[in-house]
Amino acid sequence: MRNIKLTISYDGTGYSGWQAQTNGRGVQTELETAIEKAFGEKRRVAGASRTDAGVHAKGQVVDFKLSAPIPFERIPHALNAALPATIAVIKAEKVPPSFNSQHKAKVKSYRYHIVNSAQRDPFGDRYSWRLQYELNVTLMKKEAKWLVGKHDFKSFQASDTRERSSVRTIYKLDVRKKGNAIIFDIAANGFLYNMVRNIVGTLVDIGRGYSPAGSMKRILAAKDRKLAGPTAPARGLFLIEVKY
Amino acid sequence: MRNIKLTISYDGTGYSGWQAQTNGRGVQTELETAIEKAFGEKRRVAGASRTDAGVHAKGQVVDFKLSAPIPFERIPHALNAALPATIAVIKAEKVPPSFNSQHKAKVKSYRYHIVNSAQRDPFGDRYSWRLQYELNVTLMKKEAKWLVGKHDFKSFQASDTRERSSVRTIYKLDVRKKGNAIIFDIAANGFLYNMVRNIVGTLVDIGRGYSPAGSMKRILAAKDRKLAGPTAPARGLFLIEVKY
Repeated sequence: MRNIKLTISYDGTGYSGWQAQTNGRGVQTELETAIEKAFGEKRRVAGASRTDAGVHAKGQVVDFKLSAPIPFERIPHALNAALPATIAVIKAEKVPPSFNSQHKAKVKSYRYHIVNSAQRDPFGDRYSWRLQYELNVTLMKKEAKWLVGKHDFKSFQASDTRERSSVRTIYKLDVRKKGNAIIFDIAANGFLYNMVRNIVGTLVDIGRGYSPAGSMKRILAAKDRKLAGPTAPARGLFLIEVKY
Repeated sequence: MRNIKLTISYDGTGYSGWQAQTNGRGVQTELETAIEKAFGEKRRVAGASRTDAGVHAKGQVVDFKLSAPIPFERIPHALNAALPATIAVIKAEKVPPSFNSQHKAKVKSYRYHIVNSAQRDPFGDRYSWRLQYELNVTLMKKEAKWLVGKHDFKSFQASDTRERSSVRTIYKLDVRKKGNAIIFDIAANGFLYNMVRNIVGTLVDIGRGYSPAGSMKRILAAKDRKLAGPTAPARGLFLIEVKY
């Protein structure tokens, strides 16, 4: 029995997230079904991040056990043939039995896309949060800096969570303009439920002038979800990379 | 009663094409439904191009009559509010009663996207034809030149068609590499059914070495669909612009 680590990407649009929900297909189930189709083995797949409904991934990491003696380099093709076009296996690697995609993750990186435009776009709107109002990106960049480092991010944690500690370390939080897009790159040792989307929503409130300069420091210190901004929509969020 | 010209874009993935089919929704029906929802008027919408199932549009032009006295600049927003996110009205203009989006079109421009990659991509594969084998783009560019000008394109016409004349004038047919993408830009006074996709399929056969240099001249002259290459998949095709 081998331990296998997969790097996968998916368009989250049609999914209830990593996990299946009562009313929706989960990426996890699709993978488990594909493994059974391709190798005839019923396996449970664990994922580094339990991405939410509608969230996309370019570098989600998953692990599972397999006894079929298929060479590693042939696993991606075999699984892709059994998966829907919205999910792709990019890489398969051998990992030691101690590997655990979720608990051994050291750094997770997410990207969030905003498009500043009044014009509906059937292509771009699928993968971004489109906002009509002007945003002060210089101020957003400055305010974002308060979050970098080790902090209690309780203010940015969804209220319906049961996580024990809300202390995390953000290694990087870049905000940049690229044409009419605003791109957020955020890396941390872990994220609370909805944390990236709540941070983006709060930065947007600041960028559009709803919250004044200095708000981020105050909101972080308050440890109160009610002070932070709205949860940015899932469709603009991409899980980019998980490092071990 | 005013005559209205709309410029629209749509992600054709989920549609049976411009027209509804027994087993699928058509973009035309979606627009007609939106007009009824937004303005309370049952109107027939005519489109410049009857795009096929799965073909996308960035600049499809449509026309219809409206009696509601809504200002032109408010029509896009009113219709977008009633349309699914996969269809966007970009512009609404007043046109004379003589305007006919289909019969008055002077130049139609299409773009086709190929991606040269072995790696499945849940994001890009939705909008391109992904090919694993190397293509000789220099040769494809050269062979494409034979098609520019006024010719009988019978060899590139779907066999199940009832169009009277298969003579058309291609004004432009550019093939270019951009990273691992190959982009085809083609403009003509009109296109036969499946003509762009059959031209692309034929150029791919040449680019991959199935058909030798000089094939395009021979295939064009033969006026025989059986000599041309396969029909490239719809998902890589975009209707870009219609000029009047």
